[in-house]
Amino acid sequence: MNGWTVTQTVFDSARQHHHETIFTIGNGYLATRGTFEEGHPQDRRTTFLHGVFDAAPFVVTELANAPDWLPLEIFFNGARFGMNQGTVREFERALDLQNGVLTRRVMWDSAQGERATIVFERFCSLAAPHLVCLRVSITPQHAADIKLRASINGIALSDGTQGEKLAHWEFLAQGLSRDAWGGEREGNVFLRTRTFHSQVELGAAMRVQTTRGKELTREFWDARNVPTLLLRVNAEAGETVVVEKYVAYFTSRDVEKTRVVDAALNQVNAVRDWDDALAENSAAWEKEWERTDVVIEGDDEAQLALRFNLFQMLIAAPRTDDRVNIGAKTLSGFGYRGHAFWDTEIFMLPLFIYTAPHIAKNLLNYRHRLLSGARAKAKANGYEGAQFPWESADTGEEVTPTWVPHYLDRSKLIRIWTGDIEIHISADIAYAAHQYWVASGDDAWFSEKGAELILDTAKFWAARAEWNETEQRYEYNDVIGPDEYHDHVNNNYYTNRLAQWNVQTALEVLAWLKQHAPHEAEQLLEQLDLSPARLAKWRDVVEKMYLPALPNGLLLQFQDFLERKEVDLASLEPRVISVQALLGIEGANETQLLKQPDVLMLMYLLQNEFSHEQVQLNYDFYTPRTDHTYGSSLGPAIQAIMACQVGKPDDAYEHFMRALRADLYDVRGNADDGIHAASAGGTWQAIVFGFGGLRVTRDGWTLEPRLPKHWKRLAFRFFYRGKPAVVDLDNENAKTQGT
Amino acid sequence: MNGWTVTQTVFDSARQHHHETIFTIGNGYLATRGTFEEGHPQDRRTTFLHGVFDAAPFVVTELANAPDWLPLEIFFNGARFGMNQGTVREFERALDLQNGVLTRRVMWDSAQGERATIVFERFCSLAAPHLVCLRVSITPQHAADIKLRASINGIALSDGTQGEKLAHWEFLAQGLSRDAWGGEREGNVFLRTRTFHSQVELGAAMRVQTTRGKELTREFWDARNVPTLLLRVNAEAGETVVVEKYVAYFTSRDVEKTRVVDAALNQVNAVRDWDDALAENSAAWEKEWERTDVVIEGDDEAQLALRFNLFQMLIAAPRTDDRVNIGAKTLSGFGYRGHAFWDTEIFMLPLFIYTAPHIAKNLLNYRHRLLSGARAKAKANGYEGAQFPWESADTGEEVTPTWVPHYLDRSKLIRIWTGDIEIHISADIAYAAHQYWVASGDDAWFSEKGAELILDTAKFWAARAEWNETEQRYEYNDVIGPDEYHDHVNNNYYTNRLAQWNVQTALEVLAWLKQHAPHEAEQLLEQLDLSPARLAKWRDVVEKMYLPALPNGLLLQFQDFLERKEVDLASLEPRVISVQALLGIEGANETQLLKQPDVLMLMYLLQNEFSHEQVQLNYDFYTPRTDHTYGSSLGPAIQAIMACQVGKPDDAYEHFMRALRADLYDVRGNADDGIHAASAGGTWQAIVFGFGGLRVTRDGWTLEPRLPKHWKRLAFRFFYRGKPAVVDLDNENAKTQGT
Repeated sequence: MNGWTVTQTVFDSARQHHHETIFTIGNGYLATRGTFEEGHPQDRRTTFLHGVFDAAPFVVTELANAPDWLPLEIFFNGARFGMNQGTVREFERALDLQNGVLTRRVMWDSAQGERATIVFERFCSLAAPHLVCLRVSITPQHAADIKLRASINGIALSDGTQGEKLAHWEFLAQGLSRDAWGGEREGNVFLRTRTFHSQVELGAAMRVQTTRGKELTREFWDARNVPTLLLRVNAEAGETVVVEKYVAYFTSRDVEKTRVVDAALNQVNAVRDWDDALAENSAAWEKEWERTDVVIEGDDEAQLALRFNLFQMLIAAPRTDDRVNIGAKTLSGFGYRGHAFWDTEIFMLPLFIYTAPHIAKNLLNYRHRLLSGARAKAKANGYEGAQFPWESADTGEEVTPTWVPHYLDRSKLIRIWTGDIEIHISADIAYAAHQYWVASGDDAWFSEKGAELILDTAKFWAARAEWNETEQRYEYNDVIGPDEYHDHVNNNYYTNRLAQWNVQTALEVLAWLKQHAPHEAEQLLEQLDLSPARLAKWRDVVEKMYLPALPNGLLLQFQDFLERKEVDLASLEPRVISVQALLGIEGANETQLLKQPDVLMLMYLLQNEFSHEQVQLNYDFYTPRTDHTYGSSLGPAIQAIMACQVGKPDDAYEHFMRALRADLYDVRGNADDGIHAASAGGTWQAIVFGFGGLRVTRDGWTLEPRLPKHWKRLAFRFFYRGKPAVVDLDNENAKTQGT
Repeated sequence: MNGWTVTQTVFDSARQHHHETIFTIGNGYLATRGTFEEGHPQDRRTTFLHGVFDAAPFVVTELANAPDWLPLEIFFNGARFGMNQGTVREFERALDLQNGVLTRRVMWDSAQGERATIVFERFCSLAAPHLVCLRVSITPQHAADIKLRASINGIALSDGTQGEKLAHWEFLAQGLSRDAWGGEREGNVFLRTRTFHSQVELGAAMRVQTTRGKELTREFWDARNVPTLLLRVNAEAGETVVVEKYVAYFTSRDVEKTRVVDAALNQVNAVRDWDDALAENSAAWEKEWERTDVVIEGDDEAQLALRFNLFQMLIAAPRTDDRVNIGAKTLSGFGYRGHAFWDTEIFMLPLFIYTAPHIAKNLLNYRHRLLSGARAKAKANGYEGAQFPWESADTGEEVTPTWVPHYLDRSKLIRIWTGDIEIHISADIAYAAHQYWVASGDDAWFSEKGAELILDTAKFWAARAEWNETEQRYEYNDVIGPDEYHDHVNNNYYTNRLAQWNVQTALEVLAWLKQHAPHEAEQLLEQLDLSPARLAKWRDVVEKMYLPALPNGLLLQFQDFLERKEVDLASLEPRVISVQALLGIEGANETQLLKQPDVLMLMYLLQNEFSHEQVQLNYDFYTPRTDHTYGSSLGPAIQAIMACQVGKPDDAYEHFMRALRADLYDVRGNADDGIHAASAGGTWQAIVFGFGGLRVTRDGWTLEPRLPKHWKRLAFRFFYRGKPAVVDLDNENAKTQGT
């Protein structure tokens, strides 16, 4: 174990969807699941491009599974190679996290007993993100007539929410294009296609070449929507035939729609050779890891798993496009259809804020660009300001399904309420914008965009606040907090407090703006109609917001939480499903059992506001009530941080490892649908803010390390106000080596 | 106009979907819309096979658009032929109703100015229903290098209800098979595929040959899911190249799933040549028309249009399979997803009962086979007996969508109530079984199956009847009658009366059985638990069923119908949308305007029970309240019959022509979705029971002709109790020539 390589040595069809998720590769522009080049029954072949959505039943819109660049079929004397054909003698798959190269090595006997060793390598270039590269090296043990079919498959289907198969692409054109090099490389293949509803045009180009071994004879099959190059060679015994396949994608989101094919052809022509493309990719990865890597000594599993989680963030993060966000399952599966949630702002964004501020800025700009959608949503609900959608895709409209068919009886529908009443996301986004500002010191961006996010969400919160005349306080009733086991609750502490924070911060931001960016302040005052009366209302909302709590300092998950049934979670063990699945939606709602502990989440976000004793009290109360194993996958990483804060490193480590293993070990049984992005982002926070104990304010940062006992060393880097900081913790003296 | 040919001489892309519907061909096993072999942008290419359903969002299940047999692309010196390429100089399309052959003749100039004449002919063999045949004759004006690509396209998509594109087929295998004739005909192509959910396996085979002109060079593209034969020939100027393409389909509904490909290959090999296949097809059609044709002299339009409607029935009718029904849009489009409604029993079945009793029996057997589903539905609703689903597909379960997205706002759902409360279908089916028995005299079938249909639906009706203690009567409340403008109504006359008829007839059937089939009677008594107490309840239901009517003989559409708003229909003119679309679902519900007049429908079905005066009274009351133009497409044919009964031949003719033109002239603007099957079936009833005035009882039949003035002659045939009858009416003396 070198700390950088995720390996698989046994192929099991029953686990193939899990492994497809794990072996996803990508580059922030697109990502491709780890399916086999030659295909396998029931495989879920996907390539998702950021921002390429198309309408779909129930879920409004979804990432449109793009034309497939992987197809490469191999025939030995007519026998088709496949993992379910002949006999697989040896198998190994390895994902090198250091440079994103996925390698599969198979020693295979055909049904006729002819043996060959086949090595597939692929990567999505981080240096040239429109480019994906594939190489196969074939070594037959006996002389063989080898045929290869290399295609772009335009018929990519999506798995719908009901198991239906959806097609999103309308064929437009395809063909063979003589490349810039003339006959030497012969023709490259192109495909042009378009999403049915959103009308995104996509051009894909494929170049195939041989760099080692004999030249291959070539033939083109102009088969509609599956343009294919046929290659043929007679290989001697032991001779290695190497074929490289380069594919490029451009869409009308990138260039003029008339240019998508040319741009793709130019991209594949620009590749010099495999080594060159790989070297550029590796160099780009080296830079990423320089900023992002975390070193854990004394815990090989945690080291590798953490890098795996960071890798998932790095291949999902849009580097040049600020019109897209990261879906709850990244670009790695059909789960949540590519929709973005608060998962981005609260769970993933800190990693980028501190290690790649340019990416954090892109993600926040996405929200700023879609303010119009948030304003429309607020207006449709009768409010002012910006109410961000619970689920967001390309247009900024709410894309949470309102109804989904019941999983047991399709004729029944289940109403999904999150899009209507899980309103805390507007405060989460404001919080993230503020956090980026504090950490980056990017006043220019904040004056131009960040302040508007905070002010307009504050406007929403003030409008949404309900005045309780009897109690003389503001309330938010009929909401869902982060803890989705309880819906239609009143005065969820997390929601109320973060809304209050949002409005209060808006007032502070306004004061700051007037001082440091008077022109922008004036503009925003006018544009958002921030009259003295409105600001007075804001102050009133801040002052009189209801925050349900007991006199002893116990914050209440929501107003009548203590009236719910107490259930001993241990009495439900053993179980392999969530409390909600076990007790039913209504059943779970009636208990004090939590999908995640909102109060602890809030104490983490606003950590400077609570005493150690108060944290301890609430930690002790909520921890045993939380479904850590099968509740929210967002919980464990944050729980690890809070466990660190109350001095329970063993507990912290257990929660941390649960988060780290979410996908690698499929601990929740749903990794087939894609990477748990929030969990992955959370692992970095657990490291830095939990074990590392980093605290950041506008005045600077401090460390309070609390490493698991068996860790020898923890080292990471971050940026604070544009300056790089290096933290290197030696567990023996547990002292800060920060610079 | 020869009375047999539907022609089109101008191609208009904007009307292509309408023409695709009109130029649908089929043979009772499958049908294919009239799309072009070479493809055209936005065409809706479909081939539907009876009974091949697959799960789909919202609509539960739908006909799975099968692999496409049409693809045939032609290149002249590299220029691809297409109706949107180069210049179309001449164009004619003709559907010969006499033998189901669709011909397209195009004189075309390529962009390079090379002219060719291309004639496409195709038919779905009525003699060998697994076989479809296509021939193209190409005559270039100048010598040309002609290439053809003939494929089976396994990637057939369905248009979902929301405009989404659904894929139903999972690729299994394909290849080239040396045929029984060895090298002479060279290899035939096969494809094996399977529906994703229902797991129907399908084998398709394609044979391509040249019978006139030069032999073609051949090449096979093994492109996944689109196996393709490439053909190439150098044609001299003026030389005609003729290529024939035969495709066969077999599914696991027809043969063992391991045999589907072999069966298809055998079928295409069994074809001797085009002339032979065509001759067999034409001979089969001749027999159909001998039974089915109706001659109208003095009205060319009505003559052709009527034959067109009869043709639609003939190509949709299952001849050998009694596990399938005819969908509301036949096999000709995506509308209603292939689901069968009461349309079959009440609108289409009489044609078959009287002209093709074996088909009528198949369709009724379909209901008998699915009694288990009807019993399950009754049970799920808390009743006994058989409650047939409002929409029915392959399993007998209710497949009416319960919710569909609002057409203006996808996040809203509209509840569809017909599956829950449009209960009259159970009586409609009983009525049809009885009608078949009366007309056919098929006592054996009736004892074995028909009686059970009537008894078990009666059992349902007796259980469903609600006793009104105050009024001392039985009621059916909260229902939808045929008139769907009014839902959740109480005591719909049609429903109550036909339910009463159903129970009463069941009692009579039981008496008949005891006398004529005592063994079956005993079996049914036991199996259906028809205890004396139950039968006493039946008699009580018959006696005390509430039938809302005024003392003057006006039957009420439903109980409080007269309390609805009176609206002058003329005041809403001009309009090109339905009253419901104009006033909204709630708006229409509040008025006395009708989608169709249930009371008149009932008077037609039970015509021997009403006096002429009572018919006249109700006709005069309901006719002006009915949305004849854009209400139910089921209405006009029946309205024509009732107009005949009240001696209004001009009105009758107007309604009749509206029914006849429904699809040919797309008078409702929705022929794109497929043929209006009930309207087509109704036109035959309008002819025979309306203008012909046929009345049939168990004692015999009578005629009371009332022909439109301008008709010179009306002739038709029918079977009565196994014996053929010929009716030939001369309008001058309007006397019966029946034998």
